[in-house]
Amino acid sequence: VSPAPPPAIILVRPQLGENIGKVARAMANFGHGDLRLVAPRDGWPNPAAVPAAAGADRVLDEARVFATVADAVADLTALYATTARTRDMIKPVVTPRHAAEAMRGAPGAARAGVLFGAEAAGLSNDELITADALVAIPCDPGFSSLNIAQAVVIIAYEWFLAGQLTPATVLDPRSAVAATRGDIEGFLVQLEEELELSGFLRPVEKAPAMKRNIRNLFLRAPLFDQDVRTLRGIVRSLALFGRSRSDGRER
Amino acid sequence: VSPAPPPAIILVRPQLGENIGKVARAMANFGHGDLRLVAPRDGWPNPAAVPAAAGADRVLDEARVFATVADAVADLTALYATTARTRDMIKPVVTPRHAAEAMRGAPGAARAGVLFGAEAAGLSNDELITADALVAIPCDPGFSSLNIAQAVVIIAYEWFLAGQLTPATVLDPRSAVAATRGDIEGFLVQLEEELELSGFLRPVEKAPAMKRNIRNLFLRAPLFDQDVRTLRGIVRSLALFGRSRSDGRER
Repeated sequence: VSPAPPPAIILVRPQLGENIGKVARAMANFGHGDLRLVAPRDGWPNPAAVPAAAGADRVLDEARVFATVADAVADLTALYATTARTRDMIKPVVTPRHAAEAMRGAPGAARAGVLFGAEAAGLSNDELITADALVAIPCDPGFSSLNIAQAVVIIAYEWFLAGQLTPATVLDPRSAVAATRGDIEGFLVQLEEELELSGFLRPVEKAPAMKRNIRNLFLRAPLFDQDVRTLRGIVRSLALFGRSRSDGRER
Repeated sequence: VSPAPPPAIILVRPQLGENIGKVARAMANFGHGDLRLVAPRDGWPNPAAVPAAAGADRVLDEARVFATVADAVADLTALYATTARTRDMIKPVVTPRHAAEAMRGAPGAARAGVLFGAEAAGLSNDELITADALVAIPCDPGFSSLNIAQAVVIIAYEWFLAGQLTPATVLDPRSAVAATRGDIEGFLVQLEEELELSGFLRPVEKAPAMKRNIRNLFLRAPLFDQDVRTLRGIVRSLALFGRSRSDGRER
């Protein structure tokens, strides 16, 4: 089964060319290419869009213009409409994440689209009604008006993520080798010996608790073998030479 | 336990006032208020930011300007840096979602921040090194340069969403207080000074890389203020007394 393509991004009566360009850039950042403009205020193409697209020229070049929302969505099989307001409408309201998962889960022949209203007015009730579901981006109810390009980027980002099984965290270093517990234990024994010699672990009745704290500290992070070599070198250098070698020679 | 506040958003060498305004708007959309500017190109305040903020005036009014990243992050207890590129650095790379969950799971006294590089150049390697972890926004590798306001909106959106979920894991320290970046920086400067004096940072041409490795190592784990005191004590004891005090007396 071929996966469903990214949804069409449909801007209804967009005003500033710069915003259209930023939308194109956000689409390209997250693998989208199908931009549709319904009755753009300043016509199309719009030179103000180009610098804001920052290289997403293909999205602008392939953008299509329609006179009405009905024309723009005629070939789609699923339609979402973004809205900040909860309206008196019997219509499912979903999160961007839910919409993304639903679009990703659709069969390959499905073609989804997402409607975005103009900067000022948003979508009309009639336009909202044409959608299968409303998408509400969760945000601060006291300041809920999102810039159109920022609403698009959140939808596109969620769609992109829904296609990935991203691990929560990746420790990056290509060639790094995790330190073994033996490596780490060797360092900790060395450190404790040198701290004993330097007089740090006093008074003696507190030494066991001090050692526990030090172990906790160094065992909290993942260590690589290079880290352990560095730590051993640090302790050796400080313990043997301390402030005595500031002239730069071996004593 | 009071929840951790939203992270500080730290823009490093931002260029266009309009982008700063859009960042402020995105922050207000998702409940953020702590905007910090490091060496903004056109000074501050910047009139171009106001219309782009679309009413998020409070965020702009309360924005603070710093000369360096170190100054801007000194009071923070956890620091993330956004980056598009995966660099050769032993540093955890996390997703925005993971970072948001980690920030939400931190104790109430914790203060997190997220660094964003300038429009053109991004963050320097030295700036990335100051962070506990890198945040990489998953996107199309063929078109991975995000507008700064759009990178901010994704981070802020994920933080907002994470507040509606239960944190997966919480580091437990009931009475422990997270170390500030200023505390940690103080320790690292002390360590570097003592290593310089002991002759560890040789040959001189390798010293910068050695210092970077050491910083990466100590910034990888969450540190508490007690840890920093312990580390400072360890370095002081080894550097001053080394193996000389095995008789248990001051020399």
